[in-house]
Amino acid sequence: MEIVTSSIKELYVVKIGGKIAEEEELLRRTLDAFAALPHPKMLVHGGGSQANRLCERLGIPKKMAGGRRITDEATLEVVTMIYAGSMNKKIVSLLQALNCDAIGLSGADANCILAEKRRPGTIDYGFAGDILAVNNRMLTRLLGLGLVPVLCAITHDGKGQLLNTNADTIASEVASRMVDAFSVKLWLCMRLRGVLLDASDEESLIADIDQKTFEAYIKNGIVADGMIPKLENAFSAVDRGVDQVGIGNILGLIQDVGTFLGK
Amino acid sequence: MEIVTSSIKELYVVKIGGKIAEEEELLRRTLDAFAALPHPKMLVHGGGSQANRLCERLGIPKKMAGGRRITDEATLEVVTMIYAGSMNKKIVSLLQALNCDAIGLSGADANCILAEKRRPGTIDYGFAGDILAVNNRMLTRLLGLGLVPVLCAITHDGKGQLLNTNADTIASEVASRMVDAFSVKLWLCMRLRGVLLDASDEESLIADIDQKTFEAYIKNGIVADGMIPKLENAFSAVDRGVDQVGIGNILGLIQDVGTFLGK
Repeated sequence: MEIVTSSIKELYVVKIGGKIAEEEELLRRTLDAFAALPHPKMLVHGGGSQANRLCERLGIPKKMAGGRRITDEATLEVVTMIYAGSMNKKIVSLLQALNCDAIGLSGADANCILAEKRRPGTIDYGFAGDILAVNNRMLTRLLGLGLVPVLCAITHDGKGQLLNTNADTIASEVASRMVDAFSVKLWLCMRLRGVLLDASDEESLIADIDQKTFEAYIKNGIVADGMIPKLENAFSAVDRGVDQVGIGNILGLIQDVGTFLGK
Repeated sequence: MEIVTSSIKELYVVKIGGKIAEEEELLRRTLDAFAALPHPKMLVHGGGSQANRLCERLGIPKKMAGGRRITDEATLEVVTMIYAGSMNKKIVSLLQALNCDAIGLSGADANCILAEKRRPGTIDYGFAGDILAVNNRMLTRLLGLGLVPVLCAITHDGKGQLLNTNADTIASEVASRMVDAFSVKLWLCMRLRGVLLDASDEESLIADIDQKTFEAYIKNGIVADGMIPKLENAFSAVDRGVDQVGIGNILGLIQDVGTFLGK
């Protein structure tokens, strides 16, 4: 007879995309479900669509390369205002109304996420930050106070410079750095039920995907565009010991329905 | 023989105005001095001038009444973006660069400051928040983690609504609510050396002011406009047990030069 006991706590890391936050009703439903998850948990969010809209209103041209934003100084100001300002505080105040003791954080706050400015290669991404370190000790302490960190897609370089970092990357990095203290479940929440064989058919859900099938799906074009870096981020979390990594909508998180990643 | 021992810790609460944050060099000098203060400490900031500028760029008319902003929905969005977003994160990242472990907070974060929407009287201030409660327990815990709270002028009503609250008021209320655990020093930092007898002469500093002289200064016009609510906030802190309340520039905080308030 073998008795396996484990006292290691589960930690949910849930990332929600900007498209969810755009629709008031969908955002509320998503936050309702998130608030109902057991503690400890964390939320990570972007806000790309909202940033695009503010750029447009301010006459700041949107520059993209390979699905990633090129962040000049004016754009950095905008994403800081949107991600760390309006989006983060909207989410935090809505969670507080659901008795979820949220605390909004950029990477600069409590030095949670240290990054370095991406060195210009063939493309100069401007103030884009590649993550160097996640302050898992501080995040664990904040969780220990009963708080629910709500991380936005802004990091810093420790020298006074804010940087723009992809929210999927933040979710994957943070989840990966919490595995020593927790059994981590990472959920990349989007509007679709998961990765679909046929983008127009929600019933064509791919329930499981591993590196090998992922590569095959890229080859035959089933996985394309923004879904490629999203899955790369997700696989990186699997590789670094995150217990469960899934992609799907918020209902799927509760009902265990989505695309789950295995080695 | 009477031996008085006190183990009660000093806590600095420093408020900096939007005009300080407008000038890169002045802001850096101010944050340098703040970072050098002993722990525990907190910073409170506004950002009115920056909000005005963004309102202008977005074509949102500025509405004021009695020196206070009327906050309609579009203006609330702007002040949330500026105060909690660009201003707060700029200050936090600059403090982090000075080895000051800052954590940016709106009133919604960790439910730090609960407010209620001001009921429309003769003037409807819109989404203006009057403070109901300061979560001094949570602020004390964050200080206990070695963190330096950087509070912006945004609060919430606990029901999902963000609100706009005057930064001087936040500084005074927070300082007043920390007196049970700390000997609190409140410093309202501005560009001038303090309250001046002659606005054009920095040497005409009023070193001490009490309620009685304050009223006299209002009558003869020496204290006017925005300085009246600022001093009212400051006197309110004196009344509620804040150990030392001063108004002046950042150098004055270090050198003990400014306008000090007494009963």
